[in-house]
Amino acid sequence: MYFTSEKSEHGVLERDFTLGEITGVLWTPESPSPADTSEPAPLILMGHSGGVHKRAPNLVTNARYFVTECGYSVAAIDAPGHGDRPRNAEDTRWTEQLHAARAAGEPMDAIIAEFNLSLAARAVPEWQATLDALQALPEIGPDAPVGFCGITLGTVIGMHLAAVEPRIQAATFGSVFVFDALFEVAKRITIPLTLDIAWHDEEIDRQPSFALFDAFASQDKLLTARPGRHNQMTGSTPGFSAWFLREHLGR
Amino acid sequence: MYFTSEKSEHGVLERDFTLGEITGVLWTPESPSPADTSEPAPLILMGHSGGVHKRAPNLVTNARYFVTECGYSVAAIDAPGHGDRPRNAEDTRWTEQLHAARAAGEPMDAIIAEFNLSLAARAVPEWQATLDALQALPEIGPDAPVGFCGITLGTVIGMHLAAVEPRIQAATFGSVFVFDALFEVAKRITIPLTLDIAWHDEEIDRQPSFALFDAFASQDKLLTARPGRHNQMTGSTPGFSAWFLREHLGR
Repeated sequence: MYFTSEKSEHGVLERDFTLGEITGVLWTPESPSPADTSEPAPLILMGHSGGVHKRAPNLVTNARYFVTECGYSVAAIDAPGHGDRPRNAEDTRWTEQLHAARAAGEPMDAIIAEFNLSLAARAVPEWQATLDALQALPEIGPDAPVGFCGITLGTVIGMHLAAVEPRIQAATFGSVFVFDALFEVAKRITIPLTLDIAWHDEEIDRQPSFALFDAFASQDKLLTARPGRHNQMTGSTPGFSAWFLREHLGR
Repeated sequence: MYFTSEKSEHGVLERDFTLGEITGVLWTPESPSPADTSEPAPLILMGHSGGVHKRAPNLVTNARYFVTECGYSVAAIDAPGHGDRPRNAEDTRWTEQLHAARAAGEPMDAIIAEFNLSLAARAVPEWQATLDALQALPEIGPDAPVGFCGITLGTVIGMHLAAVEPRIQAATFGSVFVFDALFEVAKRITIPLTLDIAWHDEEIDRQPSFALFDAFASQDKLLTARPGRHNQMTGSTPGFSAWFLREHLGR
């Protein structure tokens, strides 16, 4: 893992990094916790929406909140073909198909499912390698409890990660376009989690989200809904995710 | 307002009080905040379920959490005919009708609606008088922000109170049996609120709860659902209400 840039602002140290082909960013407290703190600060992995990148404005707002209000570390990586990463021919084809279907008012379900599954299959080992590298940093360490926050594509990737990676101890998911393959993934997830839906989402129906919520094997799960359309919910604050993850990760 | 008993336990001062016919309990921090604290500690009013009283176990757990974790004050009063208060002939008749309908497996909707509306009409002025008296106490004061937490009957009463009482600034409601008259009340409520439902409630359908959520005039509202049957939800913690009310009442 190589840090390629560094800036410090309002108590938050923000560093870009690369790890092989992966491009990411790490936010940590400017003033590390005192050495005598008995428990390591939790680490939050954040998964961005499809079509944007590791520095999507909402993601950055949430990341900075976790650092300044909770003293946590936060990392985000670009999904394959997103942000600072080159897009391969197959991803380009899927993206063009999505744009064409949206413009023509045709269903996008099958394309989203296939595209998201392919991205998740590639992103899971990338997140695992990133987590290895982050835990090797002295300011994070191997014992930091780890949580995942994701929306839309970030939820699909985070679900696949949480299903196979025992280091993920709690998660907040949201606004996910639900397709059949996700139900089998949800059945393998047992960690405490929340599933957030936009109550007036014009792109994602409520019923499949309810069914996905039912499918999670987690005992401790919480469904939340806020008024608003897709990615335009009112009253949304980073405080909710922070509250939930703090209940399960500590500090 | 007369205090009739007092005990102190694990950092919480608990005092029973009477105010005319009203019987209540007040929980406050054993060690009051330092005098130099610039903002007064919020006050939370808690409304118990139908058939129980001001010291229902869940209510007490939540009340103590608010005091010890947030430094808030918390008050609960017995609904008319509940707890330490005598039950009049009409309430006795409704209670007997409810028991008979439940035993016979007959619908209870009409009885619950009529009974709850009657209780709420009487409870609202009682809560207002209680709030006047609490705000006159030096340890609370007139400027304490006020929130309301209620479940089932407590939600019905809290909704009626919030619709007419501008001192209520935020609320968490839950597990309410929804009847038609509540929609008109919800339309007059504009404060930030949450509505919590038991996802597998065998007594209360989801759809009317969704419709009630839609009816609240509040811009900032959050619907939450947890697995579990009526009053038997998993993963439920006072931390959620505390997080939400803290976001809106401060401290």
